[in-house]
Amino acid sequence: MPQWDQLWIDVNIATMNADNEQPYGAIHQAAIAVKDGKIAWVGKQDELPEFDALDTPIYKGHGKWITPSLIDAHTHLVFAGSRANEFEQRLNGVSYEEIARQGGGIISTVNATRQASEAELFELGRKRLNALAKEGVTTVEIKSGYGLDLDTETKMLKVARELGKHHHVDVQTTFLGAHAIPPEYKNKENGADEYVDYIINDMLPQVAKQELADAVDVFCESIAFNLEQTEKVLTAAKQHGLKIKLHSEQLTNQGGSELAAKLGALSVDHIEYLDESGVKAIAESGTCATVLPGAFYFLRETQLPPIELLRKHNVPMVVASDFNPGSSPLCSTLLMLNMACTLFKLTPEEALKGTTTNAAKALGIDDKVGSIEVGKQADFCLWDIQSPAELSYSYGVNPCLQVVKAGQLISMNS
Amino acid sequence: MPQWDQLWIDVNIATMNADNEQPYGAIHQAAIAVKDGKIAWVGKQDELPEFDALDTPIYKGHGKWITPSLIDAHTHLVFAGSRANEFEQRLNGVSYEEIARQGGGIISTVNATRQASEAELFELGRKRLNALAKEGVTTVEIKSGYGLDLDTETKMLKVARELGKHHHVDVQTTFLGAHAIPPEYKNKENGADEYVDYIINDMLPQVAKQELADAVDVFCESIAFNLEQTEKVLTAAKQHGLKIKLHSEQLTNQGGSELAAKLGALSVDHIEYLDESGVKAIAESGTCATVLPGAFYFLRETQLPPIELLRKHNVPMVVASDFNPGSSPLCSTLLMLNMACTLFKLTPEEALKGTTTNAAKALGIDDKVGSIEVGKQADFCLWDIQSPAELSYSYGVNPCLQVVKAGQLISMNS
Ligand SMILES: [Zn+2]
Ligand SMILES: [Zn+2]
Repeated sequence: MPQWDQLWIDVNIATMNADNEQPYGAIHQAAIAVKDGKIAWVGKQDELPEFDALDTPIYKGHGKWITPSLIDAHTHLVFAGSRANEFEQRLNGVSYEEIARQGGGIISTVNATRQASEAELFELGRKRLNALAKEGVTTVEIKSGYGLDLDTETKMLKVARELGKHHHVDVQTTFLGAHAIPPEYKNKENGADEYVDYIINDMLPQVAKQELADAVDVFCESIAFNLEQTEKVLTAAKQHGLKIKLHSEQLTNQGGSELAAKLGALSVDHIEYLDESGVKAIAESGTCATVLPGAFYFLRETQLPPIELLRKHNVPMVVASDFNPGSSPLCSTLLMLNMACTLFKLTPEEALKGTTTNAAKALGIDDKVGSIEVGKQADFCLWDIQSPAELSYSYGVNPCLQVVKAGQLISMNS
Repeated sequence: MPQWDQLWIDVNIATMNADNEQPYGAIHQAAIAVKDGKIAWVGKQDELPEFDALDTPIYKGHGKWITPSLIDAHTHLVFAGSRANEFEQRLNGVSYEEIARQGGGIISTVNATRQASEAELFELGRKRLNALAKEGVTTVEIKSGYGLDLDTETKMLKVARELGKHHHVDVQTTFLGAHAIPPEYKNKENGADEYVDYIINDMLPQVAKQELADAVDVFCESIAFNLEQTEKVLTAAKQHGLKIKLHSEQLTNQGGSELAAKLGALSVDHIEYLDESGVKAIAESGTCATVLPGAFYFLRETQLPPIELLRKHNVPMVVASDFNPGSSPLCSTLLMLNMACTLFKLTPEEALKGTTTNAAKALGIDDKVGSIEVGKQADFCLWDIQSPAELSYSYGVNPCLQVVKAGQLISMNS
């Protein structure tokens, strides 16, 4: 007779397990059992095996839905400073040039983040993680990239690691030293190349040695790092045994995604300007395509990511918040489900895949989380919804009733 | 020596008082005192008069900001049923016609709302009001319009009234019997005219007699009620002593706003297709222009409301959620501040005016609420922000630290 730590009954389950051919991998009138933090049994409630009914806490779902808890696979949520001021100036007609002259733009976030203490960054990050956690998120990727020097980049990554240790949300860290060319290199003749050398020779070895990052990312774009520089950084990252991903094809098509595919990146992110040859390349390499509707919305972008091509070539689509102070100051993963459907015409099922199974793939942790299958970590949510589509359709009344993380029931009032 | 019930110090205050010429009517290093539920004193902290320091509870704002609490002046938040299913069908390529054939669209909400009990509607409404209340909203307008028969319209309005009685949020009710042509009249030759007669002869007198509505609204549009029908309903409403407002110029320019101006309406709402002569008309009548960025976003509308013309003619602009299951399933007033700035290019100050002073104007209650002035109701919020623009700039981490409603400190964990 199986011994379980916890049993949920009278629920419908969107397993998001690709082996289950129902939409959402759904099991109606289902049950799910947890043992040692892992999913021990899942299936139709009337097929439950005999179990120790006297010694198993049983939770009733009253016909509501369980899904895998959410994964936000692309955020920049450790930073200091606010960009509200330049947001307001821009809406009052001040030009980008004038704002830049006043020290606005990414550089203002870099300056504030360099000046902030670890404790300050931790507290800012904690509030943001809490906001995501309340919506049922239990895994978040956090990138560095507002330091652009060794001290601050490692400080950001340490804070991200600490957040993961002190919060029930798991944190995956990504070193994004190649986010922008820092002010110290900006006006040098070969500044970008020199900075790339600094990343490779000074920053990356420290990041790797201190085990601060799970992955390395680069902003490959006309206004940031070119293809050659990108390849150098990502190749060095691989030599340190780190996973790689890429910000690419956001503003122009630089061929970043094809490079990422060639190097075996986990994901390419933004990709509004990706074309079919790029889509084919990532399809072949098994690279995920991360769409970031928050940035699309906030920047009033009009170029849509190539959703039809991604579908045609079966590329796993990921949906993430890209939460950051410059282009996506929207700290909500649930809102991204709505935006992905509304702005990019993803189906609610694609959007939910993009924040569960495919998000896990994009982080290289899909062996552990992202779907409800026996043996995976017991990370799931109970939602006050009648169908999984409601998670994407409506926003504002938080439907998250209960989060279970590695088998622990998380208090929803924290 | 003044006797106060409550004193806030070490705050910055965005009074939104038009007599104060600072942006946001701001007072830095300010204090605010409350007596008998009203604002008794507001000004620079170092100009505080002597007061009974031993007997006055003092709250410290630690340099954070106080603003008037928010007012959502246009919602349809009492309804039953979900439209997630048709949202999903549409994204899976099912046509509007097919969805309508299956009973989708507004009619599905009408059917669900007709079938729901008052208790069910109350509980649904309560959750939605709670979501708004957590974001610092203390006044909400709620429209009927999903009954389209006497029983259900009055049921909706009763529930809205009950919500106001049992919740710290004040509810203003609006009778929107003329929201759509009900199925019973739809296929009749003069169905719309007959239904308008029914509204005027049967519904309005009951609504007025039972004092269920503060105002009356009509959906004046090619797909709903024409100008003549609109005028009939609004004129009858005025004869019952009710305030009037109008859904107009959302999809086409029908001249609804000019009619509304002629009749002295408090506001015209949506107004994407409003032209300069309409803007001039409402400017002269002192009618507010309510922009609804949630519906614009959710419908992927491209026609922008005439913001520049509204500015040019000094029309008070209102920003509201239009929360409803069909075209704006977004139950968040703070998100609307961000959308108004992002999608309509309102300045953060205009957006905040649109959810405070101007929202109060659109409800005809600006003598009582909407700004921080001596004598007005003590409805205000303390926010975890460094500048009022942050309320519009960023979204997701709820910055609302404390709500004060008529001088009562509201628990933020309810
Ligand atoms: Zn990013
Ligand atoms: Zn409306």
